[in-house]
Amino acid sequence: MMGLHDLTFRDVVQKYSLHLRDRTAFVQGDRRWSFGQYVDDLHRLAESLASLGIRKGDRAAVLSLNSYTYFVIYGAAACLGAIVVPLNWRSKPDELRIILELCTPRLMVAEPEFAEMLAGLRERCGFVEHWLSTGDTSGFESLAALMKTDGRLEDIPLAPEDPYLIVPTAAVEGKPKGAVLTHGNTVAMGIQTIAHLGINRDTVYFNLMPLFHVMDQMFAFATLYAGGRNVILERFDAEAAAQGIQKHRVSVTATVPPMLASILDRAEASGWDLGSLRVVGGLAEHPETLERLHRKTGAKFWVGYGQTETYGYVTLCPYEESPGSSGREGLMACLRLVDEYDREVAPGQPGEVLVRGPLVFGQYWNMKEETDHVFRGGWHHTGDICRQDEKGYLWYVKRKAEKELIKPGGENVYPAEVEKVLLQHPAVEEACVFGVPDKEWGEAIKAVCAFKPGAPPPNPREVTEFVATRIARHKKPKFLVFVDRLPKRADGSVDRERVKAEHGRP
Amino acid sequence: MMGLHDLTFRDVVQKYSLHLRDRTAFVQGDRRWSFGQYVDDLHRLAESLASLGIRKGDRAAVLSLNSYTYFVIYGAAACLGAIVVPLNWRSKPDELRIILELCTPRLMVAEPEFAEMLAGLRERCGFVEHWLSTGDTSGFESLAALMKTDGRLEDIPLAPEDPYLIVPTAAVEGKPKGAVLTHGNTVAMGIQTIAHLGINRDTVYFNLMPLFHVMDQMFAFATLYAGGRNVILERFDAEAAAQGIQKHRVSVTATVPPMLASILDRAEASGWDLGSLRVVGGLAEHPETLERLHRKTGAKFWVGYGQTETYGYVTLCPYEESPGSSGREGLMACLRLVDEYDREVAPGQPGEVLVRGPLVFGQYWNMKEETDHVFRGGWHHTGDICRQDEKGYLWYVKRKAEKELIKPGGENVYPAEVEKVLLQHPAVEEACVFGVPDKEWGEAIKAVCAFKPGAPPPNPREVTEFVATRIARHKKPKFLVFVDRLPKRADGSVDRERVKAEHGRP
Repeated sequence: MMGLHDLTFRDVVQKYSLHLRDRTAFVQGDRRWSFGQYVDDLHRLAESLASLGIRKGDRAAVLSLNSYTYFVIYGAAACLGAIVVPLNWRSKPDELRIILELCTPRLMVAEPEFAEMLAGLRERCGFVEHWLSTGDTSGFESLAALMKTDGRLEDIPLAPEDPYLIVPTAAVEGKPKGAVLTHGNTVAMGIQTIAHLGINRDTVYFNLMPLFHVMDQMFAFATLYAGGRNVILERFDAEAAAQGIQKHRVSVTATVPPMLASILDRAEASGWDLGSLRVVGGLAEHPETLERLHRKTGAKFWVGYGQTETYGYVTLCPYEESPGSSGREGLMACLRLVDEYDREVAPGQPGEVLVRGPLVFGQYWNMKEETDHVFRGGWHHTGDICRQDEKGYLWYVKRKAEKELIKPGGENVYPAEVEKVLLQHPAVEEACVFGVPDKEWGEAIKAVCAFKPGAPPPNPREVTEFVATRIARHKKPKFLVFVDRLPKRADGSVDRERVKAEHGRP
Repeated sequence: MMGLHDLTFRDVVQKYSLHLRDRTAFVQGDRRWSFGQYVDDLHRLAESLASLGIRKGDRAAVLSLNSYTYFVIYGAAACLGAIVVPLNWRSKPDELRIILELCTPRLMVAEPEFAEMLAGLRERCGFVEHWLSTGDTSGFESLAALMKTDGRLEDIPLAPEDPYLIVPTAAVEGKPKGAVLTHGNTVAMGIQTIAHLGINRDTVYFNLMPLFHVMDQMFAFATLYAGGRNVILERFDAEAAAQGIQKHRVSVTATVPPMLASILDRAEASGWDLGSLRVVGGLAEHPETLERLHRKTGAKFWVGYGQTETYGYVTLCPYEESPGSSGREGLMACLRLVDEYDREVAPGQPGEVLVRGPLVFGQYWNMKEETDHVFRGGWHHTGDICRQDEKGYLWYVKRKAEKELIKPGGENVYPAEVEKVLLQHPAVEEACVFGVPDKEWGEAIKAVCAFKPGAPPPNPREVTEFVATRIARHKKPKFLVFVDRLPKRADGSVDRERVKAEHGRP
């Protein structure tokens, strides 16, 4: 039984099971699933997982491209109170292992194409009792076989503050954190997205971003909440995206650079009609790309500021309302900009963004100290430095020095993690990694390294490939420069600001 | 300090104090107030009330026509944690006394025109320590004088479950209840209204309904929340309403019958342009009135089902989506229809409407037993019998027998209360009161009475006027029929169903 005043994501996924029963909720390729089928399926999976012994609070990791099954897993967990750990399928085995060791899931669901990669982890991840495959994979249980139940499920008490997801966030010092998003976060994020972007029963949302990413969840879950339709693309492909927009009369989608430009390219080349688009959510885009979007469609491009820890946008607005800004405070968010002593800064002055309200995540999984630290004073400290102008628009400045973040194509990369790998290379003596503006990806990773005296002169390309073999490929520096030595501060540490001043170009 | 994950109505009223500082938030007559002025004023009032000793949880009753000051009181209470008791200015002194005795406010704010009526209550309501007037009233403290402070207010801890309003609901057996609406209810109601009706910063809402009524609060507070503009009409007047819509380019308003028809009449007679209207919220309206609205404007008429205890609409839709129904479940509501044993009824079958979620009120003030009763099984029992069709639309059937309700012009009138007064008349032996369809008011009160044998033949008009002198005028029967005796059930009680079958016409 639920609390009288509570509304959790379980209510959202079940909301239209009766009266929109026959209406299409999901489309993937040529297949369609109604709201009725979806709720039947997720109840069946929930019952199956319960019969495996999965209980409220147990973690279930998922390593999968976008699929209807992914939505069924999200729905089943919402009913069962199990906690989904959505994994980035671009991760390397060692990165996955670190996250799995952090979250200790009792269950892993993987697509067949990732099964091989997981095989090497099974021995070290003894806490995972059930390895399930969405296809036929030797050594894995079959998810489909498991789901052959009748979907009767006892009513499990759930509260808005109960954990629903653990979303891995970027590694600091090589140590990733798991942002716990609650059932209440999900509802608050959903209704805010609906209220601002006008998502409704007629919305057709195209899942072009990966479903493990909060940016895609934000739109996908809001669409489900509003009784709209989710069209699913397994993984991004510009031609398929452009074609799908025409075919499914897509009204809403979300992208990060350079996805939108490539969709526009393909639409131009192949003649696909993007005219049904009404809203495209995203991050900083090239004005030129947006001009092309506006020439081709009546769509508004919405920008925003947010992070995994706030389950998406804290501020948002249509791009043209304040070009270059990240928009204004959303309805479910309270915002403050403060100096390093948590004193409010004057309008226009840079300050760290603090957030309060129902969008703020519940905790870092099993990291009480880190959680207490970011929540000090009753506000979530985002670690992002922004300015807020007199009209309330937020302008991104930089990451706070101690947790500088690079966002190539919308992914989070912490310099410290890349630096750590660079320093493992035999020719590298010192390393400083930071972000530089990039036409294609919005931001790109640049590394400035000092080479070891006496070692053979290093080949930059060989060094960046060295990184790519050890951590996810998108964390590989796009630019690498060798210097004799890096400038130092009085305390002997690398003077990052001076390195950036001297090398802060692509 | 606030809880990290909380959002209360205080956040809503302060939301735009900085970046919409100079934008007009309120218009009344020729006066305008910006968001900045509003927040300054409500902080000043909050500080003043604090200096009078008003603390979190203290009640402050308000007896006032619509005004900017009313909004300042709502805002100040939201900051202070004081609980507003908005009183119906059509109430009779005895009705007010009963409510005041129930809520025991420490403070009463009244408009001068109601001061005289209150004078007679002061002796019996010794718990009211401060009698404030919004004007110059002898024997009352002046609210304006009180507000001459600088508005510095300590930060008071507030949680979403803390009471914010006590709204008197209809009397059963002559005993009114106070529905406690919380800070969380107000936020949930606001965002649901914004999400469904598309309220935003460009909205101009016209307060035609009284601000003590949840129907007006629903739209007024949502508009404030979204950063839109509230235009205030002191009390409803069809000519002023029609003129004001043109003058202020009003986009949203709310009415109950026969307000809308009279506005359309005046617009036709005087040539006012209603073309700016986009949304009109309401209850069951005549199809003919709606046709006239649609001929004159592009406005959608939104209908809904709700009650004070759910802070407004639980279901809603534009009229033309399902004419005659009360719409579908709102985003913040969970609905069930059950039989008298709380078992779910089949689609199309009549059942009592149960509601769960963040819209459900907190409690009946000081009535634990009644509260526990309506909240049994973790759902709020509305006492309304409806059908829900296969598409999810709700169709109102009737009040549950034990708490039948009549809604003349959107007001709640319980038959028992009117019957009790009728029986006090020397000529009346038995009485049965119920609602009948009414072209002008949506529903009208009809009384069927048996007269005392041997007494002089009663004059129906004299008897209805007798009622009007004892309870609020809108509770006076519009129709009164005398019969020799009323039909009885086996247990000797009046057979209400037979009376209605025989007399259920205007």
